[in-house]
Amino acid sequence: MTATPLTVNGRAYQWMEHPVVIVCVDGCEQEYINQAMQAGAVPFLQKLAESGTVLSGDCVVPSFTNPNNLSIVTGVPPAVHGICGNYFYDTQADAEVMMNDPKYLRAGTVLAAFADAGAKVAVVTAKDKLRTLLGYKMKGICFSAEKADQADLAEYGIPDIVSLVGMPVPSVYSAELSEFVFAAGVKLMETARPDLMYLSTTDYIQHKYAPGTDGANKFYAMMDRYLAQLDALGATIALTADHGMNAKTDSAGMPNVVFLQDVLDEALGKGRTRVILPITDPYVVHHGALGSYATVYAGEDIDLGALAKRIAAIPGIELVLDRKSASERFELPPDRIGDLVVVSERLAVIGTSSSKHDLSGLELPLRSHGGISEQRVPILLNRKLHGMPGAQRLRNFDVLHLALNHAR
Amino acid sequence: MTATPLTVNGRAYQWMEHPVVIVCVDGCEQEYINQAMQAGAVPFLQKLAESGTVLSGDCVVPSFTNPNNLSIVTGVPPAVHGICGNYFYDTQADAEVMMNDPKYLRAGTVLAAFADAGAKVAVVTAKDKLRTLLGYKMKGICFSAEKADQADLAEYGIPDIVSLVGMPVPSVYSAELSEFVFAAGVKLMETARPDLMYLSTTDYIQHKYAPGTDGANKFYAMMDRYLAQLDALGATIALTADHGMNAKTDSAGMPNVVFLQDVLDEALGKGRTRVILPITDPYVVHHGALGSYATVYAGEDIDLGALAKRIAAIPGIELVLDRKSASERFELPPDRIGDLVVVSERLAVIGTSSSKHDLSGLELPLRSHGGISEQRVPILLNRKLHGMPGAQRLRNFDVLHLALNHAR
Repeated sequence: MTATPLTVNGRAYQWMEHPVVIVCVDGCEQEYINQAMQAGAVPFLQKLAESGTVLSGDCVVPSFTNPNNLSIVTGVPPAVHGICGNYFYDTQADAEVMMNDPKYLRAGTVLAAFADAGAKVAVVTAKDKLRTLLGYKMKGICFSAEKADQADLAEYGIPDIVSLVGMPVPSVYSAELSEFVFAAGVKLMETARPDLMYLSTTDYIQHKYAPGTDGANKFYAMMDRYLAQLDALGATIALTADHGMNAKTDSAGMPNVVFLQDVLDEALGKGRTRVILPITDPYVVHHGALGSYATVYAGEDIDLGALAKRIAAIPGIELVLDRKSASERFELPPDRIGDLVVVSERLAVIGTSSSKHDLSGLELPLRSHGGISEQRVPILLNRKLHGMPGAQRLRNFDVLHLALNHAR
Repeated sequence: MTATPLTVNGRAYQWMEHPVVIVCVDGCEQEYINQAMQAGAVPFLQKLAESGTVLSGDCVVPSFTNPNNLSIVTGVPPAVHGICGNYFYDTQADAEVMMNDPKYLRAGTVLAAFADAGAKVAVVTAKDKLRTLLGYKMKGICFSAEKADQADLAEYGIPDIVSLVGMPVPSVYSAELSEFVFAAGVKLMETARPDLMYLSTTDYIQHKYAPGTDGANKFYAMMDRYLAQLDALGATIALTADHGMNAKTDSAGMPNVVFLQDVLDEALGKGRTRVILPITDPYVVHHGALGSYATVYAGEDIDLGALAKRIAAIPGIELVLDRKSASERFELPPDRIGDLVVVSERLAVIGTSSSKHDLSGLELPLRSHGGISEQRVPILLNRKLHGMPGAQRLRNFDVLHLALNHAR
């Protein structure tokens, strides 16, 4: 190890004095923590307001999982790292594809840089979809809870992870998938003791349960117990979220959906526009691929200004931006976001065609994310911060910077 | 009675065939009902999705109690009826005053018009602040739960209301104040059987408890029982809200407050601007007079464009409009809204000077309203609607129109 700060994607990071654990709680609207505190369910988190640091920050819009996880581990917005959705229209390949392939990544991670410089680094994700992106060119421990039984950790001198954690591999649709992440994090801290660890959960619970309800409070109580253990093990913990979460329904729990492809097909004819939903991933049962953000590709003969106005007039739509404005305002890669970016209101989501969304898996009223309404997320540390400049807009992807440079 | 529709403030209303009860549930974010349904707490409301009608509508911004209650009973926006806050700066009198005095009302109510035409009309409000406005020039029963023991109902042939309801007069800061309103409504329906009744509750509970929590679910379960009784008595029920409700805190429950007068005093000097908080009313313990809407009066030598830009740049501020834009967009009386209208983001509120807000009464994390983020409200009826035109933006102040003209 060396005391020289590392510079990654233009930002400098000090070496850690103690193990640092970055936790990304998927879909953690701040109110989940606040209500869990009200219910007395999270004693460890509750004491952070006094003994540590409680801040709020803005996540990346689209407020989806992949863009934000990648921003957190690279320290920069999608305009730099390139991952602007879970799913996108690859114009070069003329194909709609998942954005899981590291070939789409345009920046290295802070995790990989520290590993290269000699730090012991570990990454544990809930779903496997993020593993290859987060572990890109990273020497160290990297596995998902979803496929924990396939992880070969022998090379790190760690026995098989399922035995280590002492939990069976959970269903991909469960609270236990996230618990496995925390449990593995604690076991790794007890055994391998990584210098830098990144734990990333899944928002299965947040898509189902509102803040303050039993289902939510139980999840946060579980999380709180593991965080307290990491704290007791001497780790500096910095917790944030990839995005918030809101109800997307009326008072009877019926989803408010703008089926944008249907609207555009009716107005302009089929095949004239292509609506992309970057929330799409292989695990859509809990949200039916319905989020508050969409991109639109239009034929060259279409008047984009008129199209934008038409979309903006649809009830439930909050904002329509052209490629240039959207890439500037949200710091997105202009070549990957379509001709128009569409954001829906807090209580509404955007779909493509009604026939393409299977909502039969929605056992509970739709809760989702993707919009500006899910941009504010918590930033919590179990340390006081020092040497912070004055009022500034914090981002969730400042969390490594805060943990390494200011929580000393 | 006559079969000729009444025209009030330019809108026509059919005579009722059955008693009609309009319920304004103060601070009823739609999620309260949705979560209460999830908890199985509101069987009557739950069946309305099948047997009745469930819609959403937009309330008046500022999303405060007085402007919206007056819009509901007049059927028109504040630009017509004149009540644009609970509190305002009366420039003619050069005084900041409550907007409770009927002298500020510029339109008659539908309630008074029906009473004049021979209908039996009753109004029951939770807090007394609304009574004189809602009962303006109205022949009929009109009292508040807060001062129910001072109501003299002998003239209507009804014994004293406290005995009739069989509940003691509750504290102004209680769930029981709203329960008294419903209990009185049921008793009146059983005895005087009004043709048209308006019931308006208080948002004491909604300021305290998040949707889906026990404190909220209990309130809605109580409401549900009384609504079921009104339904069984043959009434057409139309329920809406004056405004929604959102958390205004960070993840540890600390309020996000923009102390706007302090910011402007520091920037421009004391006495150069006057920040008015129209949420202000005599009952501020549960919200500390902190809401998501403010108006600003500026000295004549102040560059309003530059001031608007300065305010818009403050973190937490969503929108700043000048008098003309604000009065057009939100349909407000331009002579009563100040030089600038300021709206804060969903999770933030606006205060004047930090020294002027007593937050000691806030036992629980701040929840409040006033902004665009609290504009969407429920519209529920226990009848199917007929003869409705196609897609249109519904307002909470369409509720009398829906109940009288379409729920037949």
